Amino acid sequence: MPPRRFAFGRAEDAVDPDTMRAALSEFIATALFVFAAEGSVLSIGKLYKDTSTAGGLVVVAIAHALALSVAVSVAFNISGGHVNPAVTLGALVGGRISLIRAVFYWVAQLLGAVVAALLLRLATGGMRPLGFGVASSVSEGHAVLLEIVMTFGLVYTVYATAIDPRRGHLGTIAPLAIGFILGANILAGGPFDGAAMNPARAFGPAVVGWRWKSHWVYWVGPLVGAALAGLVYEFLVIPAETPRTHQPLAPEDY
Amino acid sequence: MPPRRFAFGRAEDAVDPDTMRAALSEFIATALFVFAAEGSVLSIGKLYKDTSTAGGLVVVAIAHALALSVAVSVAFNISGGHVNPAVTLGALVGGRISLIRAVFYWVAQLLGAVVAALLLRLATGGMRPLGFGVASSVSEGHAVLLEIVMTFGLVYTVYATAIDPRRGHLGTIAPLAIGFILGANILAGGPFDGAAMNPARAFGPAVVGWRWKSHWVYWVGPLVGAALAGLVYEFLVIPAETPRTHQPLAPEDY
Amino acid sequence: MPPRRFAFGRAEDAVDPDTMRAALSEFIATALFVFAAEGSVLSIGKLYKDTSTAGGLVVVAIAHALALSVAVSVAFNISGGHVNPAVTLGALVGGRISLIRAVFYWVAQLLGAVVAALLLRLATGGMRPLGFGVASSVSEGHAVLLEIVMTFGLVYTVYATAIDPRRGHLGTIAPLAIGFILGANILAGGPFDGAAMNPARAFGPAVVGWRWKSHWVYWVGPLVGAALAGLVYEFLVIPAETPRTHQPLAPEDY
Amino acid sequence: MPPRRFAFGRAEDAVDPDTMRAALSEFIATALFVFAAEGSVLSIGKLYKDTSTAGGLVVVAIAHALALSVAVSVAFNISGGHVNPAVTLGALVGGRISLIRAVFYWVAQLLGAVVAALLLRLATGGMRPLGFGVASSVSEGHAVLLEIVMTFGLVYTVYATAIDPRRGHLGTIAPLAIGFILGANILAGGPFDGAAMNPARAFGPAVVGWRWKSHWVYWVGPLVGAALAGLVYEFLVIPAETPRTHQPLAPEDY
Repeated sequence: MPPRRFAFGRAEDAVDPDTMRAALSEFIATALFVFAAEGSVLSIGKLYKDTSTAGGLVVVAIAHALALSVAVSVAFNISGGHVNPAVTLGALVGGRISLIRAVFYWVAQLLGAVVAALLLRLATGGMRPLGFGVASSVSEGHAVLLEIVMTFGLVYTVYATAIDPRRGHLGTIAPLAIGFILGANILAGGPFDGAAMNPARAFGPAVVGWRWKSHWVYWVGPLVGAALAGLVYEFLVIPAETPRTHQPLAPEDY
Repeated sequence: MPPRRFAFGRAEDAVDPDTMRAALSEFIATALFVFAAEGSVLSIGKLYKDTSTAGGLVVVAIAHALALSVAVSVAFNISGGHVNPAVTLGALVGGRISLIRAVFYWVAQLLGAVVAALLLRLATGGMRPLGFGVASSVSEGHAVLLEIVMTFGLVYTVYATAIDPRRGHLGTIAPLAIGFILGANILAGGPFDGAAMNPARAFGPAVVGWRWKSHWVYWVGPLVGAALAGLVYEFLVIPAETPRTHQPLAPEDY
Repeated sequence: MPPRRFAFGRAEDAVDPDTMRAALSEFIATALFVFAAEGSVLSIGKLYKDTSTAGGLVVVAIAHALALSVAVSVAFNISGGHVNPAVTLGALVGGRISLIRAVFYWVAQLLGAVVAALLLRLATGGMRPLGFGVASSVSEGHAVLLEIVMTFGLVYTVYATAIDPRRGHLGTIAPLAIGFILGANILAGGPFDGAAMNPARAFGPAVVGWRWKSHWVYWVGPLVGAALAGLVYEFLVIPAETPRTHQPLAPEDY
Repeated sequence: MPPRRFAFGRAEDAVDPDTMRAALSEFIATALFVFAAEGSVLSIGKLYKDTSTAGGLVVVAIAHALALSVAVSVAFNISGGHVNPAVTLGALVGGRISLIRAVFYWVAQLLGAVVAALLLRLATGGMRPLGFGVASSVSEGHAVLLEIVMTFGLVYTVYATAIDPRRGHLGTIAPLAIGFILGANILAGGPFDGAAMNPARAFGPAVVGWRWKSHWVYWVGPLVGAALAGLVYEFLVIPAETPRTHQPLAPEDY
């Protein structure tokens, strides 16, 4: 078995124009995703007073599924299409991205989400973003478990379709699969805790709408689930003899 | 015509690390599918009291279609992406998988479904899974026929897009086609018998919710339909002169 | 410019095992499509009394889109994935299929639709298929025009994504595009005339449900629209210098 | 860095049969898109009186997403699949299309939209197209900003998946991604201003229905957003050292 090479500190990453372009790509793609995703919540919640019907759930779930598929697509060849701090953490624990690069991604993702929520507030004439909250029928502990399980599924999907060196032609539909698991999990978990699976998705509207109740749930759950998925996929599903080199997620890697 | 080579007893399969990895892949993918699929039923049934409207049917059908597309995707290159004991039976009667490997898949699929239902019960604060049942307007006999026809369509789709050696570029969208036929059939058959087409999908929630009424329907129907589809596709649709060798569903075969 | 070679009478086609296998493929794929498509109409119409709401329209349109994508997929490499007499006519007027082969396809498609409607009637405990009809707000003439325009779009899509020799990688998503245009057109035309775009889709339920009112609309409209699309695409969109040889729609051609 | 070569005046483009064929392709594809898209608005608005519910929003958003995916697909290899004057402007400011060719596209797109709206009016027995309007809760200024942001996302997606020379296998799902971002943005912005992102989509129904209130919004917003996206993608996301030659969007370029 060759030695596993992890790369947690390549300082030259920080000044690399590829890294800056990847961060810009994450910024725009996350903004694009959060704008449509949170926008669908506003369009249902304020205009239709219809958030707790099957129709409202379909609107929100489909908007998230379509928008994430697109956001992953547009960033796929440039940054790897994470658009989610939890996905970046999953790639980090599996040794698929350097720590410095991950920090750039995290900052870009959070900024993109905040800018999207801000643009949404401006364009809707001042509507306050709703963001995420835990339903009264479940506790915050249940919501953390739900986010762990659902984010595990999301990041496992990212690994299997976009990172696994054996993915082959599956890589062509990876952006669809990643958007689809988000949509499916929202149809399952949406009524319970909103089903974020993405700290940036929760953070942007929280900042602009200034709502912080249970906000920690949407950081702890997704990050734990993503780390678990990264470890399980990298060390149990990928055969041990496969070389695990640092992959800077440049175009030629995807 | 070359002799058909079936492989019902390769004992070395059982200790093969590839087989173990494939079983793990089936376990996780089936859990991922059942969590979102049964979760969508709970989210509609308990929060919205909306299971018998068109909106509720859309939620459940889309959740199943998206989640199965993803589950097939994430297991596609590792285990062949069965995530369904009926699909494994179809591959078995067509000689596309060994009996020992099939047994490993079946155990993994059933375990995955039970674990998913259990996690769902925990994360929703104790909600009892609903699983499947036959509508009052039809008999169990009708439901068995419905499951036979619908599962025939599902397994025929798996054969045409994921197993047929002539599939070519069609293999790229195979996971989508497999999820789509499940969704379409649920929109048609859901109001009559729930439209399982998958014994594991029915078994997990039945164990955790301890509901066994008409449960046999969701084993007999899917298994008969899958066996028919495997025989029809393998022996009528694939030209007789095509070599039919045992395919262990390893990455290079998909 | 090379001579255009049309092949309207290759008698050997009739005994060719490839032709028989292609006809079987059309039969099963059309049955699979009609079962889910007409099944979605029954599931909405009888159980929910909900056919004239947005939710009911979504159920029917999505079921058709998903089921046609799958039906085209499973027959794509074997028969070309027509599953529709109008598509076969479009391929015939463009010289892409022989007349004898087209006749085999038409018989197989109509038989498949009838068998599907029959199985559906049996499995639902005797529910009479509804099929298609013209809304009271429009005349049969309007419905014919609507079917012409919508089927033109469907067959134009088949030509551009599945037949055009320049299709390239677009061929990979051809089954999706073909299913999607059906779904989109149903969302537009469904409330006016049901939006069949496929004589077999209308014929199967008409036979089993024995409803023939306005049935001619669903033959004349789709066949005229398909013939127009075949002529426009073949002679205006494909450059004249491209060789137009007979393509028997065998695997290597798709 | 090689010199950027822009081609704003190749007069021979105008008589090139490729250009005429590309314009025909844009004409038909835009008509196909507008027919289904505006048709879904009519089918909801007139038959169901259901335009301001979640179900109505789902119908309209899915119809647009599916129809645009198909329209981009059928024109992809012939004209690049713009079907939108804003997309053509984005390609123009990035130097990806000549000005003469762009003018041909614009005329074809606007004509296609008008013909589609006319056919729709005829086939529905005279129903007057609704087109787009600004909701009472927001101002025209808000709507312009909304169209800018949403069209930026749409054209950024076109660039990343269909124009970027590094797109690779992503090009296979480009038509899906482009349709999906339209659908997601409609689910977010539809209740506020209809979410056009396409002057031709707004123009055709405006002409045939003769409704011009706030019509300028659907020209200014999309064109500004598209130009911004073209500049940002071309000059910030694509590395400066990549050759930027004029690409006439012929088949071999896509």
